[in-house]
Amino acid sequence: MSIRDTLKDIVDNVEGALAAMIMAYDGIPIDEITVPQSGFDLQSLSVEYATVLKEIKRAAELVKAGAMEEVSITTNQTRVALRVLNEDLFTVLIMTRDGNFGKGRYLLRLKGYDLARELA
Amino acid sequence: MSIRDTLKDIVDNVEGALAAMIMAYDGIPIDEITVPQSGFDLQSLSVEYATVLKEIKRAAELVKAGAMEEVSITTNQTRVALRVLNEDLFTVLIMTRDGNFGKGRYLLRLKGYDLARELA
Repeated sequence: MSIRDTLKDIVDNVEGALAAMIMAYDGIPIDEITVPQSGFDLQSLSVEYATVLKEIKRAAELVKAGAMEEVSITTNQTRVALRVLNEDLFTVLIMTRDGNFGKGRYLLRLKGYDLARELA
Repeated sequence: MSIRDTLKDIVDNVEGALAAMIMAYDGIPIDEITVPQSGFDLQSLSVEYATVLKEIKRAAELVKAGAMEEVSITTNQTRVALRVLNEDLFTVLIMTRDGNFGKGRYLLRLKGYDLARELA
């Protein structure tokens, strides 16, 4: 399955999913799938979350909490799951506040192995 | 229930919990309960996670993702849940990688109302 198909598969199978993407730590989006009219500025979102993830990675290493695997952020409007793929890339799943977050995180983890292989 | 008792209640009732604390965004720990020999440098951890949370709050507002409620960070060794209490304070629950994360996040949310009231 291509990278885009895998992302589409995640978005299609998670209730409330708005977008899925693969991003580099420098904020460059590698590939993305967005539900029409999701209303998100994926461009600025990707740059912002890349900054956040770099900051968390640094902090986790500093306090010897181990290597970062997953970060999830819940606001009053959205839920976002970020998952590390490799040294350079991570996946992002953006969902509505009432979406199926458990399934979203599960599929992100499961498909992460395929994506990491595709991108290796 | 006092703040410390509420924190102790969370740690005692979540399998794999290592520490629970209330912190200010400037990195000052307000109160904390740690399991003996948890092996964490809570001092530096609190400062680092406060920085991370401020960064996420800023990013979420910037991309209009709404007001931050909860952040969770999974590494290969630990799981950390951070939950906003009010404008100034947030709670942190640090757990082992295989702890009961669902219950931990649930109790943090549930007890958050008590804590916010105590601290108001």
